[in-house]
This record gives sequence, structure tokens and C-alpha cells, in this order.
Amino acid sequence: MLFGTSYYPEITNENEWAQDLKNMRTACLDTLRILEFAWSAIEPREGHYQFDWLDRFMDLAHSMEFKVIIGTPTATPPPWLTTQYPEIMIVSRDGVSHKPGGRRDADICNEIYQHYCVEIAKVLAERYGQHPAVIGWQIDNELMGPEAAPPESHSRSATFRFRQYLKRIHGDLATLNQRWGTRFWSQEYSDWGEIGIPANKRATMGQVLDHSRFFSESIRHFIQLQYEVIRPIVASAHWVSTNSTGVFNSGMDHQDWATTLDTVGWDSYFSETFGSNALVHDLFRTAKHQPFWIFETNSLPEPIKPAFWAEMLAHGAQGIIMWHWRNHPANAENETQTFCDWGGTPDPRRVAFMQDIAARAEFKSPIPQNFPRAKAAILYCPDCTRTALTPDPYIHSRREIAYQERLLTPYQVLSRLGIAVDVIQPGTSLEAYDLLVMPSAQLLSLEMAEAIRDFVSQGGTLLGVAKTMHKDQWGHNYNTPGEPLTDVLGFTMARNRTLPSESERIQAQLGEVIIDCDPFVEMVTATTAQVEASFVNGPAQGQPASLIHRYEKGTVYYAAANSEALITDLAQKAARNAQIDTYESPHKRAAIYPDPQGDCVWLFNHSSDTIQITETHIPSGEYIQLTPDEAERLK
Amino acid sequence: MLFGTSYYPEITNENEWAQDLKNMRTACLDTLRILEFAWSAIEPREGHYQFDWLDRFMDLAHSMEFKVIIGTPTATPPPWLTTQYPEIMIVSRDGVSHKPGGRRDADICNEIYQHYCVEIAKVLAERYGQHPAVIGWQIDNELMGPEAAPPESHSRSATFRFRQYLKRIHGDLATLNQRWGTRFWSQEYSDWGEIGIPANKRATMGQVLDHSRFFSESIRHFIQLQYEVIRPIVASAHWVSTNSTGVFNSGMDHQDWATTLDTVGWDSYFSETFGSNALVHDLFRTAKHQPFWIFETNSLPEPIKPAFWAEMLAHGAQGIIMWHWRNHPANAENETQTFCDWGGTPDPRRVAFMQDIAARAEFKSPIPQNFPRAKAAILYCPDCTRTALTPDPYIHSRREIAYQERLLTPYQVLSRLGIAVDVIQPGTSLEAYDLLVMPSAQLLSLEMAEAIRDFVSQGGTLLGVAKTMHKDQWGHNYNTPGEPLTDVLGFTMARNRTLPSESERIQAQLGEVIIDCDPFVEMVTATTAQVEASFVNGPAQGQPASLIHRYEKGTVYYAAANSEALITDLAQKAARNAQIDTYESPHKRAAIYPDPQGDCVWLFNHSSDTIQITETHIPSGEYIQLTPDEAERLK
Amino acid sequence: MLFGTSYYPEITNENEWAQDLKNMRTACLDTLRILEFAWSAIEPREGHYQFDWLDRFMDLAHSMEFKVIIGTPTATPPPWLTTQYPEIMIVSRDGVSHKPGGRRDADICNEIYQHYCVEIAKVLAERYGQHPAVIGWQIDNELMGPEAAPPESHSRSATFRFRQYLKRIHGDLATLNQRWGTRFWSQEYSDWGEIGIPANKRATMGQVLDHSRFFSESIRHFIQLQYEVIRPIVASAHWVSTNSTGVFNSGMDHQDWATTLDTVGWDSYFSETFGSNALVHDLFRTAKHQPFWIFETNSLPEPIKPAFWAEMLAHGAQGIIMWHWRNHPANAENETQTFCDWGGTPDPRRVAFMQDIAARAEFKSPIPQNFPRAKAAILYCPDCTRTALTPDPYIHSRREIAYQERLLTPYQVLSRLGIAVDVIQPGTSLEAYDLLVMPSAQLLSLEMAEAIRDFVSQGGTLLGVAKTMHKDQWGHNYNTPGEPLTDVLGFTMARNRTLPSESERIQAQLGEVIIDCDPFVEMVTATTAQVEASFVNGPAQGQPASLIHRYEKGTVYYAAANSEALITDLAQKAARNAQIDTYESPHKRAAIYPDPQGDCVWLFNHSSDTIQITETHIPSGEYIQLTPDEAERLK
Repeated sequence: MLFGTSYYPEITNENEWAQDLKNMRTACLDTLRILEFAWSAIEPREGHYQFDWLDRFMDLAHSMEFKVIIGTPTATPPPWLTTQYPEIMIVSRDGVSHKPGGRRDADICNEIYQHYCVEIAKVLAERYGQHPAVIGWQIDNELMGPEAAPPESHSRSATFRFRQYLKRIHGDLATLNQRWGTRFWSQEYSDWGEIGIPANKRATMGQVLDHSRFFSESIRHFIQLQYEVIRPIVASAHWVSTNSTGVFNSGMDHQDWATTLDTVGWDSYFSETFGSNALVHDLFRTAKHQPFWIFETNSLPEPIKPAFWAEMLAHGAQGIIMWHWRNHPANAENETQTFCDWGGTPDPRRVAFMQDIAARAEFKSPIPQNFPRAKAAILYCPDCTRTALTPDPYIHSRREIAYQERLLTPYQVLSRLGIAVDVIQPGTSLEAYDLLVMPSAQLLSLEMAEAIRDFVSQGGTLLGVAKTMHKDQWGHNYNTPGEPLTDVLGFTMARNRTLPSESERIQAQLGEVIIDCDPFVEMVTATTAQVEASFVNGPAQGQPASLIHRYEKGTVYYAAANSEALITDLAQKAARNAQIDTYESPHKRAAIYPDPQGDCVWLFNHSSDTIQITETHIPSGEYIQLTPDEAERLK
Repeated sequence: MLFGTSYYPEITNENEWAQDLKNMRTACLDTLRILEFAWSAIEPREGHYQFDWLDRFMDLAHSMEFKVIIGTPTATPPPWLTTQYPEIMIVSRDGVSHKPGGRRDADICNEIYQHYCVEIAKVLAERYGQHPAVIGWQIDNELMGPEAAPPESHSRSATFRFRQYLKRIHGDLATLNQRWGTRFWSQEYSDWGEIGIPANKRATMGQVLDHSRFFSESIRHFIQLQYEVIRPIVASAHWVSTNSTGVFNSGMDHQDWATTLDTVGWDSYFSETFGSNALVHDLFRTAKHQPFWIFETNSLPEPIKPAFWAEMLAHGAQGIIMWHWRNHPANAENETQTFCDWGGTPDPRRVAFMQDIAARAEFKSPIPQNFPRAKAAILYCPDCTRTALTPDPYIHSRREIAYQERLLTPYQVLSRLGIAVDVIQPGTSLEAYDLLVMPSAQLLSLEMAEAIRDFVSQGGTLLGVAKTMHKDQWGHNYNTPGEPLTDVLGFTMARNRTLPSESERIQAQLGEVIIDCDPFVEMVTATTAQVEASFVNGPAQGQPASLIHRYEKGTVYYAAANSEALITDLAQKAARNAQIDTYESPHKRAAIYPDPQGDCVWLFNHSSDTIQITETHIPSGEYIQLTPDEAERLK
Repeated sequence: MLFGTSYYPEITNENEWAQDLKNMRTACLDTLRILEFAWSAIEPREGHYQFDWLDRFMDLAHSMEFKVIIGTPTATPPPWLTTQYPEIMIVSRDGVSHKPGGRRDADICNEIYQHYCVEIAKVLAERYGQHPAVIGWQIDNELMGPEAAPPESHSRSATFRFRQYLKRIHGDLATLNQRWGTRFWSQEYSDWGEIGIPANKRATMGQVLDHSRFFSESIRHFIQLQYEVIRPIVASAHWVSTNSTGVFNSGMDHQDWATTLDTVGWDSYFSETFGSNALVHDLFRTAKHQPFWIFETNSLPEPIKPAFWAEMLAHGAQGIIMWHWRNHPANAENETQTFCDWGGTPDPRRVAFMQDIAARAEFKSPIPQNFPRAKAAILYCPDCTRTALTPDPYIHSRREIAYQERLLTPYQVLSRLGIAVDVIQPGTSLEAYDLLVMPSAQLLSLEMAEAIRDFVSQGGTLLGVAKTMHKDQWGHNYNTPGEPLTDVLGFTMARNRTLPSESERIQAQLGEVIIDCDPFVEMVTATTAQVEASFVNGPAQGQPASLIHRYEKGTVYYAAANSEALITDLAQKAARNAQIDTYESPHKRAAIYPDPQGDCVWLFNHSSDTIQITETHIPSGEYIQLTPDEAERLK
């Protein structure tokens, strides 16, 4: 595994470079990620390039045997560009242009901006595409808006491209009008020129969905512009990638972006929420079934969290880059955590941490080049995130539990049971999987319904959690929720827009046990399914809370509310049915992960307790203790 | 009584119309409210009309004996109009235009918009003005802004019209400058062209008052433009109306609008606040002393609330339209509650509810065509709402109890005592009334003071609640609050801008009883009035909390703080003085309402308790039980 | 001492002037502050002046022996000016112009606005510069923005002037780029025309600092424009000043402004925060070591607070003006507290209060013309406020205790110990002082470090509180915090950006006592200093919480966290070391202030308790009782 750090030679005194790199070596770091904000340092005036300093740095890095990842600096166009072409900035809903001075305030749809981005990427690729230190290329940096949210622009360029997108998707205006439901409120378009980026807060679901898809595609297109200029120039051993962020809350389709990249990776800052980092690792590993990069992670090991690092490795990371080595006295972000103090002296605790990590056997193992598919898959649907992007309170209730949290509950259950999963998206073939977990997929197309039907009928095991298939891909409600899958599920769902009072705690009874549920229950009537648990109060009192249904060769397990206990019960039964081994986590915050190579089981203690593993948890010969934030591989 | 529903044939498959209408008949619905958002369906391109579908729908409705209310679709100008003339949109304080895609984002002051509104109204009136199914016309829809608040526009059109308004009202700039107090802070205008829509948040009270009045008048003018084109064309049996909303919190003068309409009505969604729906019913019934329409109410009877419907009837509704029949899969607002599920199947509970309602004797009684005046009137003054519209904290304290709540306290007291009231506004003749209730009318003109003086001197009974007559019609403070009525009231008021600390609970003593009061007390010194209760703490400690004063042939009852207990005591005494019968409500949330025809007493149980009525409550022979949300007529 | 009131003759009926002035006399008021908003009353149309009314008022005031302060009315340009030249208004970050109708919405950088301001000031100076009633001139009014915050403008004029400022300060772009750290994020400027007012919320610290300094200087320049036209015209006995506000939270440099004025003063409204008014008095007295003005204070004595007034006097006020005499029925701000009711009748309690104050011996004492320096000084650094002005969360944590509060803690300690201080700013000579108190001065230049080193080495006593000298004057972090003073302090500081969890209460042990501290501790390692107290928990557990260090002839006392108890301990030791007498306050909210003339000690009881003074507190013969809000001079 490679370990590295982000480094900004352009703002570091040249006479300190060698010492910095030496200090990195002492800290067992061998990889540098550089240049992603250095446009003005390379091209201080239009067409005037300064490469001498960078040449010297690259040669130094090479002489000290560093591997270098070069970022294209397109997130931060220099003042000569933004002053000359103010129209390249993002335009807000109110028509106000973003102002220079930050980052990612430029409009990825703007042709002039794109032109200069391609140009600087090309110049860099030509200069360093054969440099012996380079291993890969990172396009732009965290391709989101200035607040790490999708930076919709209402510019003329974005509007033009959105219309082109809509023509391609919908063909004609009649179709668009029907899909967007414009006839209500007199919004039927009779000319493409009447359509803009959704700006009224009561824009319809269809318009919001299309805009989010368009925007995700626009970012892919922006990535591709640079990919296509870099790839032919640089050495074939180099990979071209980008560092992702904002995965489950933005509606951006990172697996779609992956199709235009050689390798993928993301910026994985530590989250206290159990499972939330691992779930994203799985998404990026699944994108190509290959190892992925952690392009950024916290430089501060406080408290020391080996489990956090081991988890990256186990889930498929091939390299981990910390952000970042040292701050500089006057910059933006200069109060962030770094490996060194202001003067450049490495923090001894950090050095010790890295030396410890690097010495561990597991981090020395070779990284597999391809990852076998897991037996189980969890379905993530970017469109389900997108349904929450419209602010109109009459389209959805903001009080509902967010899709990200609904994704996470079953993932946490699976982590505790030691069921490894791939994270797949609609369109992925389900053939390879024995178990499909489908958390609260409220928007699913008829095509996806067919795929699920095939999967179950051919013997697959489906574990679903409410709410399922309320809307089709245009955001149109089905006649009843779940309609296209009624026969597969073995029950019907009533629409349910009645929220219980917030003080009421919804509960279900499973055997003798009373269980807490998310109040947004699905009102379900069993037809051919067998009821496992029932609601004891709330709007669905007496109706099924969990069900099992045999459909042709397969079986469906379904929880009608987001409830950890209900899902745990069903997941155990479903795993047994799918012949997938399960374990029993010794702690709420301990994750079990069977190594995809099949020869061991990882245990990650994300709690602040010391955990005693016994035979009841993992059938292994090693019954060890695991201190807080530690990880272990058991045979 | 007519029962109906809103229906959107323009977004419903034509082959489902007949079944929908049949289902409505089963649910005892006989009235349809249609077309208020269907502009683009009728006029997809400028001047190209599509009436074939609507003709067929109208004929079908007629053949099934439905009565139809046609809404002019002017709340939602179509894209061909907003694209061609972007200047018709509302312009915000910051100069940003509202964006199309929602509703009521167009500027009612804009001449081009007005032109097209008049045109589409005319076309509809010509097409269906003699259609046998039609009973009435609704102009536009909920004439407020996109958030149901007054949508002030800072457009050139609005500015032009505001200046014209000001010239008419004030005649010359010297007068305007004096009334607006512009000499402070150097804002004296020397040219009409210097005056704009108030945009600085520290605009003076006079400017804010005038702008709100202008805006209310502008809406009336906008209504009138359509009224004048529709009225001469359509059958004389048809009425022309509009559906109001935002009555007590917007400063809009709905009784003024009523003068340009044949009949009035409002959108009455259920509120948990006791009395708040009934108070608005009374305002609309009083507007013309004729029955009014409920143009919209909840379609969801959950829990079933017959009392809510019976209250509409008793207070003067002639028809109740639910919103709405069924949702459509892709539209704005498509998660709202409807009579049917997504597929169009009526909810059996709703059908049963309607059948029950329709079968009740009281709903079958003929609707009186004119309503006698009540013996009592409550004074609502739109200007009092307007005084709260300026955001300058130095003009008023936002911590004060809002005027709407101050209106409601005495109304709730009267409802429990069974005193029916008309809701009158300044300018209404007081002659017909025996009792005038005046809650917290802080802005009253000298003219209104004279009317009150005449009313009392000629034997009327006045029940007032602090704060009274602090400002005149230009927002100028009187030398002391209440100054023009000092002799009538029998006491003087000190100005009081000192707020007690929020932790202090202001109390008064009435006989042996200690009573809680709103902390915004009026500091009163009795001259000729007799003190009933006194404050026991707070800034007015020891000063009168309630008083009674004989003035010539009349009597004044006055509470110096907004206190339910103080007002109840005075209301009982005032009613006795005015020879108005009172009852005793068996429950805090039970309203008693003597039928204006005089032959029975209504009892509405708005509580969740079953109520036992005994002789102590209502002197009737029927001592019944009333279950939650039920109503009864007692002889 | 002079007592006075603000008065607005321009909005008062002329026939009421005489009675108003007579009433003022009864209330012992002899000074009038007028005209600061009266532009349109004087110049209703451009170049047309109306002075007749004002001449009559001035003559009346003179005939009744009033002293008059004339304000230039430039805070409120009249409509003829703002309509003719809309470009004189402040432009927001989003490019939106402020709208007329309020006050201080004009752009002080705008040349046209400046032209008219100079013109009206000149006209007034010429008219009344020799008038016998006049004693002084107030330039503009509360030179802040409409919300009393610095009103940054993004106008072309402001941008132009900002660039000029930057050229003057930095000389060339290379220097500016280095100081602002623009090379990170590619923001290196290659042309002055690329630089704007900071508009991106992630602007670097250097840009934000410079903009705040520029803006403070721009206000000084705006003051100077008027000063230079008024001063030569008016009588030499007249003073020219301005009324300050927003002292410690705005980054404005009021002592710098003082250099262009004859005398200084501020608007001192009562604050409940102990010491917060007195600290500002000290800043304005120190500005010129002369008595200053209270240009505005509350007119409402409720409860009566003689201590508040006596404190103004003791700290150096020469006159106290109340705001204001009477409201007028229609103006902005017309609900504010006044001396009179709406009709103009003075409040008897206010009259009694003023008569009492005026009769007191201390207020009759002659005001000294020059104030001796105090023995101790507290260092206030406007740049430390400025470091908090950028909204970028990566530059500073908003959860940190604000600099104003950090200033106040030691000031409160000194007030309780009876140590009088001057409030000095960087640049002030330290020579005259025995004790320098330096609260949390995170931004200090190397120059200031040298001044401190000299001060200590020559025998001065320094009392410092964390956090000290993290950044230099360009906002660049030193290699380690406090680096330039390490030898003087006798300890090193680690950078500390780790915040303890908010639930953790940081404590230190001093001898046997456990003490609460602000959680933003400084992690300190003693080199040659002696440790007094140590942290018992938190990120600095076991490290020094307070230290003492002898450096050459001087001594340093340092608290590594903002803690009242730690600072009190050190302040007592430091005062002893500096041979400054201390006292012991009898109450947390009782301030002791040795009269600068040296002949008595003031005691201010700002509590709601009656205080008993004994020999343990003040070694005086008079052991008195002091009722709430009272003050006393003890010999």
C-alpha cells in the first residue's frame, strides 16, 4: 500500500523542500499529491508558463524516490482569467455571479472556462506525462460547488446545455411537458427557449430530477474533456482519476463518472457515524471492482485510529493520502490540521503513528488488482437523493428521514453481521449476487422493477426496506406505491402521507419483542406474503411491519419501516436463505468484514471500549481483545 | 347547500372523466370548481385557443347535472407569455425578478400582464358565459404572493401606480411629507419621482401604511379589470367572485374587494386554533350580509370533523368545495391530500363522510339569501395589521402579541358565551348594533373616534381591549394613547413602551380572583370610569386592569390588557347591558352560535372530549351529549 | 460638567420651542445637540437653503443661554441627492444598491457624496461658525452602516480607493501577493485591476485585514474632509468632533480617527455587562488624554442609575447628552425612549433625576483639561478584532470566545482591584506605564514585540492572557505562537487548534484551588518561566496554566487561558510588582476607580445589592453603605 500526503511546493520555500521530503520519508510516506491549486504559479499570465521551479521539485521528488500524483489546477482559475472573462463564474438563482477568491466558483458548463481548463491540463500532461516520478493524474479537485454542494449555475452556458440535454433525453416538447407535469399550473412549454435551469422553488419533481442528472452528466463531461487531453499524452502506466466528495447527499453519480476514468478515489474524512466511511469505500471499490484511492484523509491521528485506516485497506484502498503536510502562514484554510507545525517540524505523534501503521503486516500485503464481487449487494440510487432536492414542501416532507440515513441503517446491520456488500446502482447487473439489499428506494423505474423481478424469480434473495418504488424515473407516482412489484413482494402498499405526531413513538411487535420504528411507516396489506411483525400503534396499527414472501425460486424479506431491529431480524433470515455466512458483532460499533480474498475476517472496533471476542462472535481460533479504534485480521 | 370539489380536467385523461364524475355523485358532490390554473391548456400559444376538450368536459358535467365554477387562470401565466414579457414578473426589493414555474409570481400592477389577464377572462366568459352548467366565476386564485403573503413588487409599473395613488390620496408633496414624517432623517420629497415602493427597512410607518393600502387597492383594481369584462358577458344568474386567503395577517382589505364582486368566499383550511375559522366566516358573511362560499377546504376528514362543516353552514356558507379530487403523478403539489388515491379510486372513508354530511337535516335546509345583522359586532381594522408590516424595530416591538391573536381572544370569549357577531371594519355604520367589541385597535382615525362616540352616546355598549387608538390613520401617535376618546372611555392612558421582563407574569385582581394578563398592559388612570379590576404587579401595578364607564346613554367596558378572564367578565356584563342573551359553554373548545334566523342554537364541539350539555349551559329542553368534533342544533 | 439633550427643532412646531427649552432648563439641561439629520430641512432643493427657521432657533437657544452642538447632517442625504445620483448609495456584495429612506446607507468613498457632504458642512460652518451659542461641531452621526456595523461597499468608488490604498501600503503586487498568500488557490494578482473589495467568503486573512484597515482609514478620510472645511471657518473656541459607536466589535480605529479631531466622544448606552461602558470611556479619554463627550446616552433613568453617570464623569466625560428630548408622531424611531411624552410634557421622574444629578457635588467639580496617564495600560488592538471578520470557517473558529469578551475579563478584574488603566493601541509609547495588560492579542507585529521586549527589559511589568502573538500584521502565522517573544515570556507555545468537546469544562489548579478556564487554552511549555498553576484536564493537561518570568529588569505574568480567577491572582502579584495600589471590591459588580487627580477613590455599585464597605476593601476612614446603582467618592 502507498502512503502519502498532499504537498504545496508552490507556497513552500524551495530551500525547505528537501527537508520536508526527508521528513516524509522518516514518516514512511512515499507518495505526493501536488499541484491541484497551482494554476497561477504555473501560468502567472496567460500563455506564460513557469516550469523551472516545478521541474526542480519533480526532479527532487524523483531523486528521493517519491511517487507523484499531479492534480490539474482547474478548481482555481487565476485572476487574469476571471478578470478577463467574468462570465466563467457560477451565476446564482438571483442572477448574481460568484466572486473570485475562493475555489470551485467557476461554471463547469462555460465554454471559455472549459477551453482554458483543457489547455492547462494539456500543458501539464505534455510537461510531465513521461516524468519518471509521476504515477497518476487527478482531474480538478472535489468537483462540487464552493460549499461542497452541487453548484448549480443559472448562466447562459448552463441554460444552453440544459436545453440540449433535455432535447436529447425527451426528444420533443410534448414528451417533456408530459414527464414534467407542466400542464398543471400552465407551465406547458411551446418552445425550447422557454425552459431554464429550475429557479422557482416550486419547480416540479421532473424538472428537478432532470436538472440534477444533467448536472451530474455535465461534471462527467467536464472530467472527460480533461481526460481526453491527458490520456493520450501521458505514459500508459499513469492512471487518470479525480477525487470525489459529497457522495450520498448530492445526487451526483460518481459511478457514472468512474466510466470515464482509469481509477477512482475519494476524500475520506473521519466520520463518527458508524459505517458511513465504509459504505463509501464499497461504492468506489464496486465502481470498477478494483482498488481505489483515498486521495485525502485527516492528517491528525487524535485519538490514534488504526481501525479507520485498516478499514480503508480492507475495503479496497490501494493508497492513502493525508491532507496535508504543512500549513503556510497566510493562506486560505491555514488553520486546518497538518502533519507539521507552522515551522515545518513534523508532529512526533503523527510520525509515530505512520511508522506504526507502515510496519503492520496487513499494510504490507500486496494489493489485489481486481476485487471479486461480494455475494451481497446494496442498491444505491442517486435518483432517490435527487427526489429531495426540490424545496417545495408540497412535493416532499423535509421532516422525513433522509435517504442517506435510510441507506445507512441496513448497511450498519450488515456490518455487524459481517456481510460484505458491493454498492451497486440501477443498471448494474444483479446476476452475480445472491442477496440484494434495497433500502428505501422510493424512485425506481419500470426497468429496475423488471430487473428485480428477474433476480428474485431466478432464486435471488431480496431484502427491502420501506419506502419502495413510489415514483418512476420521471418522478411520477405509481398508482399505488410499489405497484410494479406487487406480485414479487406479495403485498400491496397504500399511499401514506399522514405523519404521526412527532411525540408518538411508532412500535412493532416481532414475536414477543417490541421494537422501535421510524415514524414514516409504509401501510402494507399482505396478499401472498407471510407477516413476521406487526405495528402496535400509529397510522398502520395492526398492519404488517415485516414480511417474507416466496416468489418463484426466490424470497423477499421486507421491513415496512426503517428499524434496526426489524432489519437485523430479516437480514439474518435472508442471509441464511442466501447461504451467506453471518457473524455476531461483539459491539454496536464493531464492524466485521470478511476479506474479499476469502482467507480471513477483519474486525474493526470503532468504539471507545475494549472488546472481547469470543466464539459466539466469530468462529475462529483467536479469541482476542481489541482495544478502542483498533483492527484485527482473524483467520 | 352545495358540495363540491376542485377538479383539473386538463391534467386528467379524458377517458377517466366520466368515472370521476360518477364517483363524485356517489360521494354526494354536485359542484365542480375548475380551470383556475389551466391557461396553457386553453391557450397553448398566444391567440391559439383549444376549447374542444373543455367543451366536451363542460357538456359531460352538464349532462351529469353538475354545477360548475370557472376560475380565470391568471395566477399562472404560461411560458409563452413570461418568456416574451419577462417584465410582468414581480420584482423583489433587491431588483431580482421572480422566476416562472410557480404561481402568483406575476406583478398585478403590470399593464402587459393585466392586458393578457383581461383577454383570457373575456375569451372564457364569451365561450361559457351562457353554458347551462356554469353557476359562477372565480377571478384568479388566492390573490396573494407565491408564499400566500402580499407580494409587493418593486417594478416600474408598481412604482408608477404607487405614485399615482399617493397623488390622489395626499394631493401634494407637502401633505405627504408631513404625513410620512419625512422631515426627520432628511427624507422630504421635493418631486414625486423621488418616491418609491418602500425598500429601506427603516421606512416610516406612514409609507408602510400607504403601501399596504395601495397594494390592497391594486388587487381590488386587478379583480375589477376582470370583473368588468366578465360581468356583462355572462348570464345574469352567474355570480363573479374570487377565493380569498390570508385575511387577518396580510393587511389586505377583503371587505373592500367584496364591493367589486357579486358574492364572496374564502379558502378555509382547518385550524386547531379555537374560533379562528369561524371569525373569518363572519367577516365574509358580514361583507355582503349574504351567504358566502367556501371555495376550498381540506379533502381529508381525519379525524372526521362534522363540527367544522356545520360551523361553515351555520355562519353562512352556501357551498363547500373540497381541495381536491385527485392528484396527478407529476405535478407541483402532488403530495397534497386528495379525495382519491393516485389511481383515482375514492377513499371509502371520505365517501362515507360526505354521504353522512349530505344526509343530515341541517345541510338540507334552504340557505337564506340574506343574513340579518347580528346584535353585536366586532371591529376588525386592516390598518392595525398594517402597523406591524415595517421591520424597523424602533417603530414597533415584534415581541408584542400580534393583532390577529388580540382579535381572537375576545372572539373566543364571545363564542363561548354564545354571542353571535358581525365582523365590521372602520367605515361600517354602527347604528344597527347594540354591542361593539373593539379588540386592541391601536390605529383608529378621528372619524372612527366620532363614530364610536356617537354609538355610545346614543345608548350603545362598547367593549374595548387594550391597546386603543394609539395612532391616527397616518400612523401618527396621538399626544396620549386614546386621546380622542378620553371622555367616552372615562380614563386617560399613559404611553407605555416599557416591557416587563419576559419572565414576569402580569396579573390582575378582580374581586377575590387573580387573573393572568398579556404583559403589554395599558397604563390607565380612571377619571370618571369605575375600576373593576386592578393590576397586582408589573409596570402598571395598582392601576386599573378593567373599568366600566357610563357615557351619556351608553356604557363602556374596557380591559387594559389582553386577558381572557378579564374580557369574559366584561363581556357578560356588557351583554347584559345590551340585552343580548348569553349562554355558558360546557367546554373551553365548545362554541355556541345562535342561528341568525333566530329559531335555534348551534353547539360545536371542537374538543376531543364528549360533552354533556345541561340546563346551566343552554336553556333548551334537549340535554344531549356531544361527541368530539360533532355539532348539534338545539331549539 | 455640561448636561444636555438631543433636540430636533426641524420637526418640532416652532411655537413649542420656547416651552421645550424652558422645560429643559427646569431639568438642569444647558446643552443642545441638534441638526445631525436635518439636511432636507436646510437644503430642501439643491443649492436652495432655508435658514430662517434655524436662525430663529439658534437665537432663541442663545437667548436662553444654551450651548449648542451642531451636527453635520451627512448621514441622511436628501431625496433630491439620492435620486439624482443613485450611485452614492452603498453597494452590497451581490451588487445591490442600498435604498434611500434610512440612514448611513450612503457610500463614504463616493466622490459625489463627499462633494455634497463637504458643501453642506461648509454652508453650516459659514452660517453658524461665529454664533455665540455654538460650542462645537459633530461630523456626521455614528459613522457606521445602517445596522451600526461597518458598511462595506462594493461600489466602483470603494474599489478604486481600495486599490489606491493597497498600492500605497504594499508598493508592488509581488509584495501584496506574498502578504495575502494568494499563491495558494491560484489567486496571484498580475494587475491591480484584478483586485476587488473582498467578496468571496473564503477571502484570505490578509485581504480581510487590509480591507478593514482601509475602511477605517476611509472613514477617517471622510471625517477629515469635513474637518478641514469646518475648522478654518468656525471660531477657534469651537471644537470639531464626531460621535463614535461600535468600538470593540467593528475593527474601526477610533483612536486613529481622534487624530483628526479636536475632541472625541461616543454614544454610551447602558449595558448590563459589568465594565463594558467604562472600558470604552477609558479608550476615548486615552485617545487625547483629555476629557471626552458622551454624545448620546439613555434618556430613561429606570431604574435610576447615578453610578452609571458618575462613572462617565470619573473616567473623564466633560458633558453628557441624552437621546432624546421628545418624539414626534410620525417619524422613524418614534417609539424610542424620550424625556417627554408625545405631547412634550417632561416625565417628572426624569426631571427629578436630572435635578438630583445636577445638585451633586461631584458633578459640580471643575473638569480637568488634561488627564494624567494612568500607571497601568491595557492594550487594545483593532487588528485583533479584524481577524474575526472573515466568515471562512477554516481561518478561525467562530466558537471561540470573541476578542471583546477577552478584553473585558482582565478589565473587570482590574476594576474590582481598583487599578485604573489607560486603553492604548499598538504604536502608543509604553514608556509612561508601569504595568501593561495584554489580553489575548493574537495579532501583533514584530515591531510591537520589540516594544514589549523593551518595556519589560527596562523594568516594566507585563500581564498577558492567552492567546498571544499567533499572527503578524499581515495575518501570517508565526512559526509557533508567541515566537518573537519567547525569551521575554520564558516559555514556548504549541499551536493549538484542537478544541475540547463542548461538554468538557477546562480547569486549572492554583495551589489548592481548582479554577474554571475558557476551553481555548494555550499549550505552553515553560523554559525559564516559573509555573504558578497547571491544567488538570483537557488538551493541555499537566501543562502550565499560569506562569511568572523575570526578564532583565522586568517581570511577565501570564495566564494560558481566559480565566477570571487566574487573572485575578496574577493581577494582584503584578500590581504589587509594579508598585500599584490595589483594593478589594466588596462586590462582583462594584468597580473601584482611583481618581486620576489622585485625591480620592470612586466606588461604583453596579449591582442590585446594598454594599457595605469596610476597611478590608478600601483603606479609607469612610466605611459607608452604598445602595444599588449608586456611586461614592471616598477620600
